[in-house]
Amino acid sequence: MTNSWQDSARQKREAILAAIPAEWRLKDLPSVEEQRDVTGDYIRGFLTEREVEITETDAEKIVGKTTTGEWKAEEVTRAFCHRSALAHQLLHCLHEIFYDAAIASARSLDSYYAEHGKPIGPLHGLPVSLKDQFHVRDVETTMGYVGWISTFEGKKGTGKEKVFESEMVKELRILGAVLYCKTSVPHTLMSGETTNNIIGYTLNPKNRNLTAGGSSGGEGALIGLRGSPVGFGTDIGGSIRIPAAFNGLYGIRPSTGRLPYEGMANSMDGQNTILSVVGPLGTTVGSLRLVIRAILSQKPWLHDPLVHDIPWRDSHEQQITSLIDSTDSSKGGKLCFGVMRTDGIVHPSPPILRAIDEVVEALRSQGHEIFEWNPPSHQAILDEAFKTWEFDAGSDIKSAFALSGEPMHPQVAGFSELEKHYKASEIATVNVRLRELKKVYMEYWNSTAKFTKTGRCVDAVIGPAAPWPAARPEKYSYYGYSTWVNALDYTSVVVPVTEVKRDVDVVDANYVPLGERDRKSHESYDPEIYDGAHVSVQLVGRRLEEEKMLAIAEYVGKVVGK
Amino acid sequence: MTNSWQDSARQKREAILAAIPAEWRLKDLPSVEEQRDVTGDYIRGFLTEREVEITETDAEKIVGKTTTGEWKAEEVTRAFCHRSALAHQLLHCLHEIFYDAAIASARSLDSYYAEHGKPIGPLHGLPVSLKDQFHVRDVETTMGYVGWISTFEGKKGTGKEKVFESEMVKELRILGAVLYCKTSVPHTLMSGETTNNIIGYTLNPKNRNLTAGGSSGGEGALIGLRGSPVGFGTDIGGSIRIPAAFNGLYGIRPSTGRLPYEGMANSMDGQNTILSVVGPLGTTVGSLRLVIRAILSQKPWLHDPLVHDIPWRDSHEQQITSLIDSTDSSKGGKLCFGVMRTDGIVHPSPPILRAIDEVVEALRSQGHEIFEWNPPSHQAILDEAFKTWEFDAGSDIKSAFALSGEPMHPQVAGFSELEKHYKASEIATVNVRLRELKKVYMEYWNSTAKFTKTGRCVDAVIGPAAPWPAARPEKYSYYGYSTWVNALDYTSVVVPVTEVKRDVDVVDANYVPLGERDRKSHESYDPEIYDGAHVSVQLVGRRLEEEKMLAIAEYVGKVVGK
Repeated sequence: MTNSWQDSARQKREAILAAIPAEWRLKDLPSVEEQRDVTGDYIRGFLTEREVEITETDAEKIVGKTTTGEWKAEEVTRAFCHRSALAHQLLHCLHEIFYDAAIASARSLDSYYAEHGKPIGPLHGLPVSLKDQFHVRDVETTMGYVGWISTFEGKKGTGKEKVFESEMVKELRILGAVLYCKTSVPHTLMSGETTNNIIGYTLNPKNRNLTAGGSSGGEGALIGLRGSPVGFGTDIGGSIRIPAAFNGLYGIRPSTGRLPYEGMANSMDGQNTILSVVGPLGTTVGSLRLVIRAILSQKPWLHDPLVHDIPWRDSHEQQITSLIDSTDSSKGGKLCFGVMRTDGIVHPSPPILRAIDEVVEALRSQGHEIFEWNPPSHQAILDEAFKTWEFDAGSDIKSAFALSGEPMHPQVAGFSELEKHYKASEIATVNVRLRELKKVYMEYWNSTAKFTKTGRCVDAVIGPAAPWPAARPEKYSYYGYSTWVNALDYTSVVVPVTEVKRDVDVVDANYVPLGERDRKSHESYDPEIYDGAHVSVQLVGRRLEEEKMLAIAEYVGKVVGK
Repeated sequence: MTNSWQDSARQKREAILAAIPAEWRLKDLPSVEEQRDVTGDYIRGFLTEREVEITETDAEKIVGKTTTGEWKAEEVTRAFCHRSALAHQLLHCLHEIFYDAAIASARSLDSYYAEHGKPIGPLHGLPVSLKDQFHVRDVETTMGYVGWISTFEGKKGTGKEKVFESEMVKELRILGAVLYCKTSVPHTLMSGETTNNIIGYTLNPKNRNLTAGGSSGGEGALIGLRGSPVGFGTDIGGSIRIPAAFNGLYGIRPSTGRLPYEGMANSMDGQNTILSVVGPLGTTVGSLRLVIRAILSQKPWLHDPLVHDIPWRDSHEQQITSLIDSTDSSKGGKLCFGVMRTDGIVHPSPPILRAIDEVVEALRSQGHEIFEWNPPSHQAILDEAFKTWEFDAGSDIKSAFALSGEPMHPQVAGFSELEKHYKASEIATVNVRLRELKKVYMEYWNSTAKFTKTGRCVDAVIGPAAPWPAARPEKYSYYGYSTWVNALDYTSVVVPVTEVKRDVDVVDANYVPLGERDRKSHESYDPEIYDGAHVSVQLVGRRLEEEKMLAIAEYVGKVVGK
């Protein structure tokens, strides 16, 4: 009577496609070889001029028009629905499609505006995509698990199926956002590549040889192809920043306790040594700021017990803009950036190093200070951080696979081999050690005030988000550049910088790897395969510095011309 | 060659006494029967008029004089040293005495003032006592463990012995505070009575039949006898509020992440489901506000990785004062208090119920609203919270006792019987459950806005901090009234209300206990034994509402005449 996991997966996969109106279906899908890059003119070819105009407008400008009645929510919504439908067919980036509900919701927003002459909230008529960890009424949350189909987080008969909504979903609705799709994730969420047995492998729109990243890979692919103006992902080891970086987007990993995670599905829920956080990805910093400010205006600390009562702080942004505008660079009235070109464990690939250099040069030319970042051991931090992923010996993940009998993809198969189940005193040791490492790093950061010309501490650290511009399938082998940030609970924003140029970003034939892990990483980069891919950097700030880091990221984006 | 634990304990006990100057030693110590209450005129009999004046001035007024040069730091320090020395002899409340260092530090503050004509900081010349979890250079931290004598947290040769200082100690020095003693704790810290094999049992100065409370019991006894104007304790299940309540003091349990715990000794360090927090006890709310504001002025979030970047918020206080001053009580422009007379598990004793009624009547007479608090199950919250104390099967505590072979006192002997060591997935289950319970409680609190006349949520909940005004030795049997606050991470302030009156606070002969636990609690109360003891209530606010709750506590103290 019960379906095989293959049947269940296929039915779900077909149901997702079936939610796409016939007129938006692509008849002939090009192969990767035929069409490596599906962004730009390629995707525009399937859209009207008006749809292109709408979908290539950033979130901030969209609400500038939808909250003033210049654009109708329905038209905006339809345009993004159309483009997201194309994205899914070309990239496999959606888990749930609910265009009808979205259009109904857009219409009711338009009615509200017509009746009251004002928007319902600051996100009135803005389509927002959500990673498939958010619970949205009337649709499922599978998180890529076949065994979660027709359940609530793997359980049947909870009464929450297709009814329960995550806290942030409720807030987005109040703010006037239009929800229309949920985006793909790797099963387990614990991978920098997005693949699962339901929708397959999520491709990178700029270069379909490569992954869109993970675990918020569907968000990365979708927004990368402008099928969404802004969306929310989550990040426990890089899962917002990796897809942002791989798709030429801005993405922020806020510190824990800034945005509400309440009521979302998760992997290994209850592991509270390093918490997953939720945060936006978008095409501009303004988009990220818009949605964060909007969410904070809802006082999420009254609805999520883990959110701190910290409203949006304009003054933190203003401090940065006045430093930027300062003409007093001789006395150090400007910004000061640390630069970390390598963590000494795995060296970044040539395009990443070039991107860092371009950022450094652009900032230096504007009179900002650059400081060589020589931090305490990242290896020591990572050693503790990676333990947290294994605390429960993979039991939560194994049980999710056991529901259907589906196999684990190679990217996460390590979980099936875990045997050691940490006990309380071992977890306590990790907690103490991580706190000590945070303190040491914090005092290193404090100490920079003694060496900078500004006399202030380094404002942000420029470094890689990953060793490569993106990863080739089954080659995402190193999480160190993103995970140290989670371990220290720092605020971090990814900034797009450039694209891979096959003739410039060549491989050093004489390169001597630092070890086996570095060798694997080194060998996975190939200028031919990577040509045209987005290249991004990560800007890391201290804990709970979201306003400051967005202001810095916006400025860095400007000086590098993005 | 190694001492027996008895010898080590005796030597340490004698060394503490030996640090008291001969002229401050009491020759004849009165028995409890001879002198139940050692506060007031009794203790004053050993002091000069000037010493009484100084030591009966609250912290806020002290710094009003020491920061303006009206009082010399040295004279203030000497007065509190003297009174604290008397307190220790009568109550056994100190673990470390360093009067010489304190006087030297006070002199250097006086020199600074003489030279610069201004104070070194907002706490210039204020003596501050510290629970024996703070590391202070030149003295030990035993935390009541014989095995910790001559070690750093039980370890030898760390290089930190008598050198390392806790973060807050450094900040207090910068602010101009004078450190002069460390106060007693129960071994393990996990008890509402303070007793250990080094200094014995810490008595309640107002009624020496009773405990001074725990685990910050030394702080409670010392400040209760005015041997300190303000001091810092810690609280994981009630350890600030219990001694504050038992000694007629104000004490605040801030939410986690508000004040720096960095670099302090602890029990079961690394258990991060429910974190211990640090907070002040003092004779007035002004004292607590003074030291919290001062600490926050040091931006502790730059030196403690677990502290949030939340400066002192004047506006939160002002909102309360304007509500209090509002004359618009008909429309609900006043405050609204929930009142919880019982948690339905253990009923409070008669004097606690009378204190709650007195508070309720006083507030009602001022036009404030009183709301019957019918919260979600406290039993469910406590079930999860108490598990956290047992996660490691007592292994951390057992190993501390094993260092010397000393026995556990009956109040904490339960730890020796623990066998179940929680594993990661079991801890995760507790974490998820606690988060769910927090959410449910949060939404109950939110829902009160629908029922109050103010149309706002309840501002604070009035309830017991413990079932009794204090506990008789070995009879502290129930932590539910304090620990629910830790489990939910709420802000809570204890407010003194009245004293036990043997003729008023009589036992109901027809009382039917709710169960065995309630029976034990009920039988431990005896009006004769308790006569004269302080009676306090607890005011509970939501998470990170320190400014608001201090303002409310100050007002409540005023209306009940304390």
